[in-house]
Amino acid sequence: MLKNPFFKNKGPFKLPDLIYNSKTGLNSKNEVTSLSKDILISDVKNLNEATKNDITFFHSANYKEFAQSTKAFACITKEPLSQYLPAGCVKICVDNVLLLTAQVTEQFYPDSITDDNNYNLEPINDIFSNIISGHNTFVGPNVQIGNSTRIGHNTIIEQNVSIGNNCSIGSNVILRNTFLEDNVHVLDSAIVGKKGFGFIPIKSLNYRYPHIGYVHIKKNSEIGAGSTIDRGSLSVTVIGENTYLDNQVHIAHNVKIGNNCIIAGQVGIAGSVTLGNNVMIGGQAGISGHLKIGNNVQIGGGSGVIKNIPDNTKVMGYPATEIKNFLKESKK
Amino acid sequence: MLKNPFFKNKGPFKLPDLIYNSKTGLNSKNEVTSLSKDILISDVKNLNEATKNDITFFHSANYKEFAQSTKAFACITKEPLSQYLPAGCVKICVDNVLLLTAQVTEQFYPDSITDDNNYNLEPINDIFSNIISGHNTFVGPNVQIGNSTRIGHNTIIEQNVSIGNNCSIGSNVILRNTFLEDNVHVLDSAIVGKKGFGFIPIKSLNYRYPHIGYVHIKKNSEIGAGSTIDRGSLSVTVIGENTYLDNQVHIAHNVKIGNNCIIAGQVGIAGSVTLGNNVMIGGQAGISGHLKIGNNVQIGGGSGVIKNIPDNTKVMGYPATEIKNFLKESKK
Amino acid sequence: MLKNPFFKNKGPFKLPDLIYNSKTGLNSKNEVTSLSKDILISDVKNLNEATKNDITFFHSANYKEFAQSTKAFACITKEPLSQYLPAGCVKICVDNVLLLTAQVTEQFYPDSITDDNNYNLEPINDIFSNIISGHNTFVGPNVQIGNSTRIGHNTIIEQNVSIGNNCSIGSNVILRNTFLEDNVHVLDSAIVGKKGFGFIPIKSLNYRYPHIGYVHIKKNSEIGAGSTIDRGSLSVTVIGENTYLDNQVHIAHNVKIGNNCIIAGQVGIAGSVTLGNNVMIGGQAGISGHLKIGNNVQIGGGSGVIKNIPDNTKVMGYPATEIKNFLKESKK
Repeated sequence: MLKNPFFKNKGPFKLPDLIYNSKTGLNSKNEVTSLSKDILISDVKNLNEATKNDITFFHSANYKEFAQSTKAFACITKEPLSQYLPAGCVKICVDNVLLLTAQVTEQFYPDSITDDNNYNLEPINDIFSNIISGHNTFVGPNVQIGNSTRIGHNTIIEQNVSIGNNCSIGSNVILRNTFLEDNVHVLDSAIVGKKGFGFIPIKSLNYRYPHIGYVHIKKNSEIGAGSTIDRGSLSVTVIGENTYLDNQVHIAHNVKIGNNCIIAGQVGIAGSVTLGNNVMIGGQAGISGHLKIGNNVQIGGGSGVIKNIPDNTKVMGYPATEIKNFLKESKK
Repeated sequence: MLKNPFFKNKGPFKLPDLIYNSKTGLNSKNEVTSLSKDILISDVKNLNEATKNDITFFHSANYKEFAQSTKAFACITKEPLSQYLPAGCVKICVDNVLLLTAQVTEQFYPDSITDDNNYNLEPINDIFSNIISGHNTFVGPNVQIGNSTRIGHNTIIEQNVSIGNNCSIGSNVILRNTFLEDNVHVLDSAIVGKKGFGFIPIKSLNYRYPHIGYVHIKKNSEIGAGSTIDRGSLSVTVIGENTYLDNQVHIAHNVKIGNNCIIAGQVGIAGSVTLGNNVMIGGQAGISGHLKIGNNVQIGGGSGVIKNIPDNTKVMGYPATEIKNFLKESKK
Repeated sequence: MLKNPFFKNKGPFKLPDLIYNSKTGLNSKNEVTSLSKDILISDVKNLNEATKNDITFFHSANYKEFAQSTKAFACITKEPLSQYLPAGCVKICVDNVLLLTAQVTEQFYPDSITDDNNYNLEPINDIFSNIISGHNTFVGPNVQIGNSTRIGHNTIIEQNVSIGNNCSIGSNVILRNTFLEDNVHVLDSAIVGKKGFGFIPIKSLNYRYPHIGYVHIKKNSEIGAGSTIDRGSLSVTVIGENTYLDNQVHIAHNVKIGNNCIIAGQVGIAGSVTLGNNVMIGGQAGISGHLKIGNNVQIGGGSGVIKNIPDNTKVMGYPATEIKNFLKESKK
C-alpha cells in the first residue's frame, strides 16, 4: 500500500492516550498500560499492512490468517479472537472492535470525517494555464493536473487530486482524494473519491467511520457517465490499466479491479472485492462484499455473485454458477 | 398525514362544479347533482385520510377495507366497486377512476403539474447569511435553511424546501418540495422531491398525474450520491431517523421507510412500499410496489421482493424467500 | 435510416486508399486492387442499410440473412463468413473485422472519436431569445431550439442538438447529438447522446470505436432523472412517441424503443435491442444485447431477459420466462 498521501497524520501517539482518549468508555488500563505506556504508535493500518509501530484491528475470523502473521504492535479485537494474534502483539479487547478502531483512526486523521465539500475553491483556469477547461469549473487545494488534459463544464475538483497527462474529465464530474494516471477518461456526472458507505450502526445515531484512503485509476482506463467510485477506508480503491466501466456503475470502498477488465452498465461491486485481470462483467451484475474474483473470469449480465470465482471461469445466474448449469436450468 | 404544506389549495369547490369542470366528458349529473349540489368540497385525499368535507377515490379491490370505513363525502370509483363504500358516501362512477381523480386534483392544485424548474432563483448567499455554500448555488421561493448547514457547489434548491440545522448538502444536488430535519446529509448529485413516475397511460398522450405530496427526511439520515427520491402523489415519501441510503438508490413516490434502516447501493423501492424500523437491504435488491416490509427485516443483495415480509425475517433470492431456502437451493 | 445529420463525412474515398490507409497492416492488395481500384466509396453503413456506393461489415453469423442480400459494394468480413455474401460484393477478409471497420469509419468521420466536451459554448440566453432558461446554461454549435421550450439550471447543450417546441429540459442535463421532437420532457441530470460503450478490446490499450450515430426521441416522451441514453454507433438510438422512462434507466447504443412504452426505474437495455409498441418493463429489469422484444410485451420487475420475446407475452424471472411459470416455480 502506498503511504497515505492525502490525509494528514497527527500522530504519533502514546498507546494509552490513543485508547483512552477515545469515547468508548474503556475503564481498565491493564494490559495496555503495563506493556506499553511509553511506546509511540505511528499509524492505524490493516492487519497485513501494519508494521511494528502501528496499531491494527481484527474483528472477524475470516481474517484469521492475516491476524496470525501481523507485525502490528497492538491490535484492537474481541476476546474470542485474541488467541489468533501473535504472542508479542498487545491485545486490546473490546465489544465493538470497529467503533474503537474508528475512534482511534479519527485521532490520527481528524480531517477525514468531514471531507465533503471544500469551500476554498478557485476557478480552474486561474490556477492551471496548461489545460483546457469549460465553464464554472473549480479546483481546491492539493491538486495537480498534467498536460493536454481537458475538463468539461460545471466540474468540481475538490482537494487531494492528481490527474495525469492526456486525461479527459467530463462535465458535472466531482473528484476528490483520487489519483488518475495518464490517458484516463472520466465521463459526465461521475463521482469519484467520496467517502464509502461505511459506518457503525448505532440506534438513533450511526457512527461515521473515517475513510482515510483514496482512489487510484490506472492509465488508459475509462469511467462511465453517472458512475460512483468510493475511496478506500484504510486502504485504496483501484481501477486497473485499460479497464473500462460503462454508465451507472457503482464501485464501493476498497475494491481492487485488475487490468483489461470490461464492466458493463449498472454493475455494482460491494466493498473490498478483488477482481483479477481480463474480467468481463455483463450489465446489472452484482458482486457481494469481500469476494475474490480470479483472472479471465466472465460474469453474465444480471448475475448475483455470492462466492469466490476461480480463474478462467464463466458464470451466470443468481446465485451465479457455471454458465452451462445456468443455461441448462433455464431450458427446463 | 400532515396538511399539504407546499402546494396551494384553490378550493373549496362545489361538488358538481368539481366534477363537470373536468375534461372526462361526464354527461349525467344524476347522483351528484341531486345529493349535493351546494356542498363545498375542501380537498382530495386518500380513502383513509379523507374527512367529511373531502372527495376521495377507490380504484382497486385491494383497498376494500379502507373504502368500507372512509369518511369522505364523495368517492370517485367504478360501478363494481361502489358497493363497498358506506351508504352515506356519494358515489361517482366512471370508467377511468384515476383520470377523473387526476383532473379533480388539478383543480385543487393547478401548480402541481409543472413544478419542475423554477426560474425565479437567487444566489443562495444573497438570501441566507447564516450558512456556508459553494459556487453557483441558487435558491427559490418558500425555502428555509437552519444554522450550521453547509451546501456544496452547483446545487439548486427549488421552491418549497425546509432544511434543518447541521445538515450538509453536497454538490450538484437538486431539492424541491422536501423537509429535511436536523443533521441530515444529502450527498452529491442526489435528486430529492421531484414528481413521481405516476401518470395515466393513454395512447399517443399519457395524462400526467399531479403529485401534490412531498418528501420528509427525518433527523440524522444520509442520502447517497446520485440517489433519487420522488415526492408523494397525494401523500408523503418518508425516510426515517438515522436511516442511511448508499449511492444510486431509487425511492419512488409514497414510499415510507422507518428508522435505523440501512439501504445499500443501487437498491430500488417501487411506489407506496412501507418499510419498518431496523431494515437492512443489500445492494441492487428491488421491492415491488405497495408491499409492506416489517421491522428488523434483512433482505439479501440482489433480491427481488414480490410479497409482504413479516417482522424479524431474513430473505434473499428472486423471488425473495427465506434465506435458508435460498442458500439450500443454491447448493444443489 | 436518416442520413447522418451531425458528423461530417469526409468521403468519398477510393477503396484501396480507404483500406490501406488504415492501421491494420493489411499487406495484400489482391482482390481489392484488381476489382475496384478507381471506385469511389461514399460511406460506411450496416449490411441492410448500405447501398451500391457503400462499404459495410459482417462479423457474426447472426447477421447471415442481412449479409446475403446486402447491396454494399464491398464488405469487411472474415474468411469463413465470406461465403454468405453476394457474388458481386468485394470481400475484404481480415482477422479483426471490427478493428478495420472502426479504422475505415474514422477516415469518413474523423471528428466522431473525441466529441465529448465542446469548449466553444455560449450562454444559452445570448443565442436563443425564444426560450426560458435557468442559470449557468450553455449551448454549443449546430443547435436548434423550438418555441415554448424551457431549460433548467446548469444544463449543457453540446453540439448537434435539435429540440422541438414545448419541451422541458431539467437541470444538470447534458445533451449532444440528439433530436428531440415536440413536447419531450428530459428530467434532471439525464445524459443523452454520449458515445456508446463500444470499443475493440486490445490488451493495454483498447481501440475506441467511432460512434457516428445519434439519439432520436419522439414526441410526447419523458426521460427520467439520472437516466443515460447513448447514441448509435453507425445507426440511431430511438425512443418512441409517448414513451416514458423513469429515473436511473440506462439505454445503450442502437436500441430502438417503440411507442407508448413504460419503462420503470433502474431498467437497463443493452446495445442494439429492439422493443415494439406498448411494452411495459418493471423496475430493475435488464435486457441482453441484440434481442427483439415484440409489441404489447410485459416484463416483470427484476427480470433478466436473455432471448427474444414474441408479441403479446408477459414474462418475468431470470432468465425471464412466461409469468405463470415464474409464479408457479416461486410457490414451490
